Amino acid sequence: MKTIRIGLIGFGTVGSGTAEVLRLQADRLRKRTGCAFVLKTVADISCQALPEQFKGIRLTKDVNEIFADPEIDIVVELIGGIEPAKTFLLKAIAAGKHVVTANKALISQHGREIFEAAAAKNVEVGFEASVCGGIPLIKALKEGLVANRIESVMGIVNGTANYILSQMTDFGKGFAEVLKDAQAKGFAEADPTYDVEGIDTAHKLAIIMTMVYGMTISLDDISIEGISSIKPIDIAFAKDFGYRIKLLAITRNHGDHVEARVHPTLVPETHMLASINGAFNGVHFHGDMVGDVLLYGLGAGKMPTGSAVVADIVDIGRNIVNGAVNRVPSLGYQPAEIKPRAITPLSKLHGSYYFRMSVLDKPGVLAAIAGTLGKYGISIESVIQKRRHDTASVPVVIWTHETDESAVQQALAEIDAMDFCTDKTVKVRILEDQEG
Amino acid sequence: MKTIRIGLIGFGTVGSGTAEVLRLQADRLRKRTGCAFVLKTVADISCQALPEQFKGIRLTKDVNEIFADPEIDIVVELIGGIEPAKTFLLKAIAAGKHVVTANKALISQHGREIFEAAAAKNVEVGFEASVCGGIPLIKALKEGLVANRIESVMGIVNGTANYILSQMTDFGKGFAEVLKDAQAKGFAEADPTYDVEGIDTAHKLAIIMTMVYGMTISLDDISIEGISSIKPIDIAFAKDFGYRIKLLAITRNHGDHVEARVHPTLVPETHMLASINGAFNGVHFHGDMVGDVLLYGLGAGKMPTGSAVVADIVDIGRNIVNGAVNRVPSLGYQPAEIKPRAITPLSKLHGSYYFRMSVLDKPGVLAAIAGTLGKYGISIESVIQKRRHDTASVPVVIWTHETDESAVQQALAEIDAMDFCTDKTVKVRILEDQEG
Repeated sequence: MKTIRIGLIGFGTVGSGTAEVLRLQADRLRKRTGCAFVLKTVADISCQALPEQFKGIRLTKDVNEIFADPEIDIVVELIGGIEPAKTFLLKAIAAGKHVVTANKALISQHGREIFEAAAAKNVEVGFEASVCGGIPLIKALKEGLVANRIESVMGIVNGTANYILSQMTDFGKGFAEVLKDAQAKGFAEADPTYDVEGIDTAHKLAIIMTMVYGMTISLDDISIEGISSIKPIDIAFAKDFGYRIKLLAITRNHGDHVEARVHPTLVPETHMLASINGAFNGVHFHGDMVGDVLLYGLGAGKMPTGSAVVADIVDIGRNIVNGAVNRVPSLGYQPAEIKPRAITPLSKLHGSYYFRMSVLDKPGVLAAIAGTLGKYGISIESVIQKRRHDTASVPVVIWTHETDESAVQQALAEIDAMDFCTDKTVKVRILEDQEG
Repeated sequence: MKTIRIGLIGFGTVGSGTAEVLRLQADRLRKRTGCAFVLKTVADISCQALPEQFKGIRLTKDVNEIFADPEIDIVVELIGGIEPAKTFLLKAIAAGKHVVTANKALISQHGREIFEAAAAKNVEVGFEASVCGGIPLIKALKEGLVANRIESVMGIVNGTANYILSQMTDFGKGFAEVLKDAQAKGFAEADPTYDVEGIDTAHKLAIIMTMVYGMTISLDDISIEGISSIKPIDIAFAKDFGYRIKLLAITRNHGDHVEARVHPTLVPETHMLASINGAFNGVHFHGDMVGDVLLYGLGAGKMPTGSAVVADIVDIGRNIVNGAVNRVPSLGYQPAEIKPRAITPLSKLHGSYYFRMSVLDKPGVLAAIAGTLGKYGISIESVIQKRRHDTASVPVVIWTHETDESAVQQALAEIDAMDFCTDKTVKVRILEDQEG
């Protein structure tokens, strides 16, 4: 039987999970592929000894042992972050090893350099685990949906943000309280900025867009808004109108330009994305041939991410034993076809909006707001103003008809500068039910 | 550039859809694969001429032209039914052609013969389109979830049945009325038996089980109940208790035996499967490593099914140009590993139930029912009896605690034989919210 030997860098949560998946599924993988997948060496600077069940696997603090080992076919990088992960991946590639990673920050920010180096050495780069953990999303885009022009992608791709919004929705709690609780339970990092401000979501959107469009993209091209300004009152108003608030990664294909944005969104309760709760992820595609497709599952965690890492290992292993390396190009398109594409400026967007203004409760306020919106051609669908007894400031909630983002930006800048405004207006875009 | 040439048998809905997908996506497929995918010949006995956009493609009434053409690499069978589809597939295989089909009846009933013939000639069999149309489900099972023991599968895999149940749920209409409407709109066949009685769902379950477990299975092993006895009153009671009624294909993995059943099921509204409405399909897997995964999309239709057929064509084409035929075995496991497995007898199931008895409204009826259930150890969670003025018969609805199917079968046989029973008891199994 043929044997594929693996070197693993990083024995933290996902690293040890991957080792466990390889160990627990060894027999199944052999029955499926006719090959043995053997974890030969683990490199980790802080691990003193591998757990009992991994006896026979070499542990080293010197990662170069892995690069120098001619028996190792595939190097798996699971330390995360940009450096030294990037250097390690490039060294592995230079040594002629295939590489697998779960590192979304690295792939989204330095993917180009890594993929070019891999192409030059004719080795493969697997990164299924970098987007939505265990969900076989990258493979679906590269292979299952190969015969589609993807018209739009809308994804809940950050479990922490989705957990926080779900808890706020189900229990009416405030953002800060839920975040603290999530941190205590290990569902959120000590510094939650990447998750709650949409940056991690943008990393994943960048990778998805590369795959979907065959394009290069920089993180700066993505307009990013997080969820930290969302209050229970917004979630309650959304509920009353039949919506849920979700942090979405969105891209739409306009042919000569493509949208790239991350922001909280009002999703109709009848849309599948509204049903994705807690730490789960889900990505909704609209393909011109296949129509709507949604993939759902756990986007993080030791074993789900390990499942995706091992799927990549097996995929590459099958190519090695069949002499079919790069049978499917790493980015889904032939390297020469990967090109930059224009990004739709956010100001060109068109849609309906939810606004929550924070204003002093005095005469003339609503007239001033309505007048300003009218001046910019923004048509109001509903207004809700509820008296509050606990503060001097009251919320005014407005649902608009379809309008232009540029008009919204100008109108809100003007309204927020008015002396009765006590805080910046919270703006949430509304996903129309008929939208792909 | 390398060229893969295709022969297509059958130019009906899916056949013409496949031809359209190949035509519309030709440039994308070339950019993705570096190959040209060319539809060379169409065989159809009733088509007089191909539409204008397909000029240059040969049309023949003699299918043997395709088998005899040494230039053709892949034969696509899209005529449906058992014969002559089976003969055509076997002839294509005998001629050394790779084959692709969307024919679930054929694959589920005669798959073994076809896969053995293909293995003997070292050609591939693609059948992604045979289960859930455009959803890349077979690929996910064979590759993306390769490193998982699948613990359970629960699927809404028949769009017609799901459309009927959704319409009954949303508009409170009766089964017969919705069915008639669905037939008028082309969503249901003139003879709807396969769809509404769960047979089509069982075909797909058989294929899924083969993939999941690496087993051979006969349709006779699957216990099948359809949806024709479901009434609006059942759907209304379900709603009151926070459930939706769905026709599910279910299998659970007990190691030495596996469940195989198709029946209407009460699904909690909070479960993702409850959100799958209209003609959509969705399949929920629980993998031991990845946890819960759900794939959702259109399970039928000209272009979605064409999308899946072309994904198979591209997959095989990539293997041809890379000299990697059967890189992934057709059934996901090495042929020698495909084995029969014991099926859990339905009587061994354990769970909660919804019963609707139809009884005469007279004293002692409830006591007789409750007494019989008690005799078999079936514990009642709720009883609802509502007076009806339009008929002599009244419904008695009972929700049970967890119990054994064998007890249920015995108790209901006894109750249905009682002289106050005016109709057979309707029995719907309840999916527990915590179930995989």
